[in-house]
Amino acid sequence: MRIALAQLDLLIGDIDGACAQIRQAVAVAAKQGADLVVCPELAAFGGYPPRDLVERRWLVERQWAALTALAETVALPTIVGCIEPLAGAARPALANALAVLDRGVVATYRKRLLPTYDVFDERRWFRPGEVASVIEIRGRRVGLTVCEDIWPSADSGVDYGVDPVAELIGRCDLIVNASASPFHVAKPALRRRMLADVARRAGCPLVYCNLVGAQDELLFDGDSCIVASDGALIARAPRWTTAVTVADLADRVADVALDDIDDLWTGLVAGIRGYCAKTRQGRVVLGLSGGIDSALVATLAVDALGAANVTGLLMPGPYSSRGSIDDAVALATNLGIAHHTLPIGDGFDAALRTLQPIFAGTPSGVAEENLQSRLRGTLVMAVANKLNAMALTTGNKSELACGYCTIYGDMNGGLAPIGDVYKTDVWRLSRHANRDRERIPDASITKAPSAELRENQTDQDSLPPYHVLDRILRRYVEESASPAAIVAAGEDPDLVAKIVRLVEVSEFKRRQAAPALRVSRKAFGIGRRMPIARAIG
Amino acid sequence: MRIALAQLDLLIGDIDGACAQIRQAVAVAAKQGADLVVCPELAAFGGYPPRDLVERRWLVERQWAALTALAETVALPTIVGCIEPLAGAARPALANALAVLDRGVVATYRKRLLPTYDVFDERRWFRPGEVASVIEIRGRRVGLTVCEDIWPSADSGVDYGVDPVAELIGRCDLIVNASASPFHVAKPALRRRMLADVARRAGCPLVYCNLVGAQDELLFDGDSCIVASDGALIARAPRWTTAVTVADLADRVADVALDDIDDLWTGLVAGIRGYCAKTRQGRVVLGLSGGIDSALVATLAVDALGAANVTGLLMPGPYSSRGSIDDAVALATNLGIAHHTLPIGDGFDAALRTLQPIFAGTPSGVAEENLQSRLRGTLVMAVANKLNAMALTTGNKSELACGYCTIYGDMNGGLAPIGDVYKTDVWRLSRHANRDRERIPDASITKAPSAELRENQTDQDSLPPYHVLDRILRRYVEESASPAAIVAAGEDPDLVAKIVRLVEVSEFKRRQAAPALRVSRKAFGIGRRMPIARAIG
Repeated sequence: MRIALAQLDLLIGDIDGACAQIRQAVAVAAKQGADLVVCPELAAFGGYPPRDLVERRWLVERQWAALTALAETVALPTIVGCIEPLAGAARPALANALAVLDRGVVATYRKRLLPTYDVFDERRWFRPGEVASVIEIRGRRVGLTVCEDIWPSADSGVDYGVDPVAELIGRCDLIVNASASPFHVAKPALRRRMLADVARRAGCPLVYCNLVGAQDELLFDGDSCIVASDGALIARAPRWTTAVTVADLADRVADVALDDIDDLWTGLVAGIRGYCAKTRQGRVVLGLSGGIDSALVATLAVDALGAANVTGLLMPGPYSSRGSIDDAVALATNLGIAHHTLPIGDGFDAALRTLQPIFAGTPSGVAEENLQSRLRGTLVMAVANKLNAMALTTGNKSELACGYCTIYGDMNGGLAPIGDVYKTDVWRLSRHANRDRERIPDASITKAPSAELRENQTDQDSLPPYHVLDRILRRYVEESASPAAIVAAGEDPDLVAKIVRLVEVSEFKRRQAAPALRVSRKAFGIGRRMPIARAIG
Repeated sequence: MRIALAQLDLLIGDIDGACAQIRQAVAVAAKQGADLVVCPELAAFGGYPPRDLVERRWLVERQWAALTALAETVALPTIVGCIEPLAGAARPALANALAVLDRGVVATYRKRLLPTYDVFDERRWFRPGEVASVIEIRGRRVGLTVCEDIWPSADSGVDYGVDPVAELIGRCDLIVNASASPFHVAKPALRRRMLADVARRAGCPLVYCNLVGAQDELLFDGDSCIVASDGALIARAPRWTTAVTVADLADRVADVALDDIDDLWTGLVAGIRGYCAKTRQGRVVLGLSGGIDSALVATLAVDALGAANVTGLLMPGPYSSRGSIDDAVALATNLGIAHHTLPIGDGFDAALRTLQPIFAGTPSGVAEENLQSRLRGTLVMAVANKLNAMALTTGNKSELACGYCTIYGDMNGGLAPIGDVYKTDVWRLSRHANRDRERIPDASITKAPSAELRENQTDQDSLPPYHVLDRILRRYVEESASPAAIVAAGEDPDLVAKIVRLVEVSEFKRRQAAPALRVSRKAFGIGRRMPIARAIG
């Protein structure tokens, strides 16, 4: 039996586009002699997560009509993720389903385990399926599952009280899993182990087809594959790209190695490229401070969009060092991007003059520091509007966690490419960016980080060394460890208290932050929902 | 039997504060001879919605320990909403529960119907309870329920497959419902009808205790009450304020009338006051354009915080009319608030000079318009930082829906008091503000709305009359009606297509908007979750 994995990159709600891609994938698969085509979760609706678009019942109906029409035309049995409208008025009146197309929609299966943690909200939109489904295709019994259905509770931590895999054991010759499984660093290795475990446990091959591409903050690495009942690899789709991969169940291939930092780089590039493509943005603009964060984001943007579509703005202010300006120019030159120098001095002086009625006689402080950042943010947006480009923010996760960023200033932008990357990983990625040749100036990587908003300022005036900060943040933000537990693990109590307080009081900034590409288990954004008004410390 | 409704206003996560308030309420109730005290949903954790704070297991444990200690000291049987940690490691390992305190925690009940629509995410955090609970207090059989448990599916539209009220009929002499039921306009009347229906259906009195106050964008009006088995009113707590209301089940009182526009006013004032109090902000600052939106927000802020804590900024620009400046001054004078005039001309000129390398030779357009708004936004934030105040945004729901607002400009601020109020309701509220005397200048109410960002601009250059716009927006945003259905209801097809497109393409702005006080069934914010990257039109 030959099976095709249709690893698709889709646009939410673009039903015609999705059906065209599915039709094209089936045609390719047919030419390669496939007996069955498997598409990702919710493919017919244009991918994942559809969020509250699913509440537009008319859109769901249109998708169902398009899927029904598609079913008449496909040359091969095809399993497509879709939204199934359920009979009756009671909500949720939808299922996250699979449709089996074979001259008509010949069967459907409804996802049974609906994740409702982190970035997932499936109970909000869908009613869980209640029964297993085994269909017959070319004489083989094929068990159907969707994404979470096969993840053991040891990984998700969630006890659904149902084990869909157990119900399929002994009842099928093959298990299909259609997924939209978001990427984070180290997830691919985890997923590969999990898939081999499921195939061995089920005692039959497992066909895993995952979505690929970017959807707002979520990244999908693809990594679709077919695993034999002994855990051996039958086929593997290329990662981070669309593909129709066809294999015979008798095939065996060697696996492709994984590298976390390379993966992180590729994912961030795919995230920028996908977000821009799917929001119809051809160009980006960003501030270049001479520091490592903006240098990294510019380099990622060049890899995503090409140097011709990236514009850098140098916006020196009263406290900018000569070295920073030189480093920013060197970066732009290395990358071959357009850059302009727009000093903020005149604007800063004008603003301070305007503010005299209120500022006169007060000491210079956070108002004056933020003002510089906001004037820069205003210039970035003015240029973005003029060039019909999108602004990228350059803040990293460590900053965003501690609130070391200015709302309506350096936080201005439509996407935060490294908003889920800790500063220590910013350094690792920057060295990776230079693996073939120096693109990010060495000085940007090695100098002490500074916002340069006052005389002789450095980040470490008020923060611990970044390796200590990031270690504490990982425990507090990602693992929800208590301050007491972090101290018990050996951290300084005063430092922990200080950092916890910074994280807590800057929640209001993150509520208004640009979507940050999610590359960790717990990113700021749709997967972390905190009240702003709450008890602090 | 005498029952006390402890209608509390709490701070999420402030466990000590919550326990102190409960203890105090019990003391008051005891003095008035109560036999039983009922507190709102999740009271022991500091109210609703706790969101991902519940993932801090140590905080939940601390709450449980505090509740257990409290149980030893209360003089009366007391029913308290709380988070109950469940045994075992499987997630969700928590229940949205009631604890019955009576010299120890003598019983718990776990909420059975967990809403997961609109602003609710309860399946994310809690495991549903599986059994009804009837306890005995002073010889009476008391059935326990939490909020959604008693709402019929005709209202929520959700079919849970379980009817907790039905399971209590005939088994108890009294039903208690502890709630955290968010306000929206017309909800109180709906809720009163529902409560009377439940009491009649159950054939016994219903004790309803609701949270009061504001929590981020959510408002709670309280309106706690006791309803007799025939639907008659036994007691009603005052609305929009904390109260301990004690009544005998034999009592009868006349009900208090409801008025939607007065309620909306009171709710918005409570929302501003609560948000500021709970985020430790004493002062607010906002731009005064002379238009009706900023005039309304300033007036609401004065009612919430007092004139001494509101600062208005007049920021005339190249296209500001003399009338607008006069109207803003008249408003500030009427309200008795501090106001400063900070013209943006110098800053605008400086920015345009700085941008010359890029702007030279281009026609003036959206970049120059937004620039004015962003310079104003930057001044507002500078003053906010300097005065240690919070900025309020002044945009209304009609603007926010259509994207007629500038991100990082007039959208700057920590709270959007009227971000869920349509423009047509802005006019109604403004007339309400002047019910006793003119506070909002009549000219601000009667003149044609304009952003004044270019020569002779008015909102109706590019938008239909607001009563038409708002009617279309209500159908599209709140009712999820399809464009075709809206046209079929009699609207102009081209206009519907244009407005739908405006709503769709401005999703990215709303993702970064300040929390908007929720006063409708469907507000922009945590209850409406849309992908940014998606098919448009």
